[in-house]
Amino acid sequence: MPRIVTAAMLVIGDEILSGRTRDRNIGHLADIMTAVGIDLKEVRIVPDEEEEIVSALNAVRARYTYVFTSGGIGPTHDDITADSVARAFGVPCEYDDKAYAMLGAHYAKRGMEFTEARKRMARMPRGAAHIENPVSVAPGFRIGNVYVMAGVPSIFQAMLDQVVPTLRTGTRMLSATVPCPLGEGVIGEPLAQIQEEHPLTIIGSYPKFGEGKFWTELVVRARSQDALDAARKDVEAMVAGLNATN
Amino acid sequence: MPRIVTAAMLVIGDEILSGRTRDRNIGHLADIMTAVGIDLKEVRIVPDEEEEIVSALNAVRARYTYVFTSGGIGPTHDDITADSVARAFGVPCEYDDKAYAMLGAHYAKRGMEFTEARKRMARMPRGAAHIENPVSVAPGFRIGNVYVMAGVPSIFQAMLDQVVPTLRTGTRMLSATVPCPLGEGVIGEPLAQIQEEHPLTIIGSYPKFGEGKFWTELVVRARSQDALDAARKDVEAMVAGLNATN
Repeated sequence: MPRIVTAAMLVIGDEILSGRTRDRNIGHLADIMTAVGIDLKEVRIVPDEEEEIVSALNAVRARYTYVFTSGGIGPTHDDITADSVARAFGVPCEYDDKAYAMLGAHYAKRGMEFTEARKRMARMPRGAAHIENPVSVAPGFRIGNVYVMAGVPSIFQAMLDQVVPTLRTGTRMLSATVPCPLGEGVIGEPLAQIQEEHPLTIIGSYPKFGEGKFWTELVVRARSQDALDAARKDVEAMVAGLNATN
Repeated sequence: MPRIVTAAMLVIGDEILSGRTRDRNIGHLADIMTAVGIDLKEVRIVPDEEEEIVSALNAVRARYTYVFTSGGIGPTHDDITADSVARAFGVPCEYDDKAYAMLGAHYAKRGMEFTEARKRMARMPRGAAHIENPVSVAPGFRIGNVYVMAGVPSIFQAMLDQVVPTLRTGTRMLSATVPCPLGEGVIGEPLAQIQEEHPLTIIGSYPKFGEGKFWTELVVRARSQDALDAARKDVEAMVAGLNATN
């Protein structure tokens, strides 16, 4: 039996919803999850509003094995992720001794003032564990099944690198792509038939459009190599057959 | 009083969640919504699973003025958006006479067979209105406050162009960006103070990291020019003052 491990992502930030910033973390997380065998099942992008963060987080953390968040953990007034996560878990948000000492030492070493704003980055829900930040010191954190990380892509990626080796992973979803010069209208019926005959696979069809022509990428996914190979063989035969007659 | 109009987006597709395809429609919709004065408040990415689509759609359509979906309206078995939307609205999903005739004529003209797969693209929830597809004929549709559009970016954009002029829009959110050479740790406290003094604005702080240095973009947003200008002036004065002493 394949092991199934699921995840959701919560992207926190007005700047993504206003179009000001293009998200670059969703695609990265999706790639990594697929590579290690965790099914990313849902992503939500929510604004910098405590009610919204709390209710989205509580919805997804109850449903999936893991939840990854990005954004809102900096030192400014609009960084409300730590408070919101604490509220979702019903625990106080307070200075973490270790983070406070680490940040204090970091700024002291540089002769920089440990401002109230910078101290904000040492706040986390009581009981949270650090996620190391090799880029800019201020840590992310884990509480329960929720991993809270920065929105800046280089920091998000560095934090995720710390986290991934600690995760329980599932049976990897293998995939094979079959390029198809025909449009979806031609392959739709026989492809649906192949999907029915291979219930252990997920067969996707992705229309491509360029230079005035439609073509298609067919993607077979399965957690077993045998299931994948059998379905792929049928898809390839279908494409070859239709290609000869269309 | 500013008029507030809200929207959510539902991105439908396994390929986004698996990392196979990078979404390009969220950022485009966000830009357009901001430009016309509609607040994009939430985005959800869900897999090609009817239960997931129905429950996410029902959650967001009840909450926001408009919902825009992308993906899953092609001719293949994994395109289940029309059926899912129909189920969410509790109406049958059936061939639309006008879409059926239009697609039939399109393929006849090209000497192409009007296959069962192609006919699928004429199916929509009973009572839905067309959204024209100038790229590849098969229409999107509107039902209630839900606009169902293609996932292929060029088609999504073309469909959105049809839709936008028909939408009720709100008071535009104006914005001004103040570049700041200082990190968030320095500006955090005075910026929070300015935010408090300008409750009609939303002030965001976006850390940037490059060439080994942190800097910050400060963004003031407001629905009134006066409120925007007053807050911007204070932010600029703060940056100038801190810059002189740091």
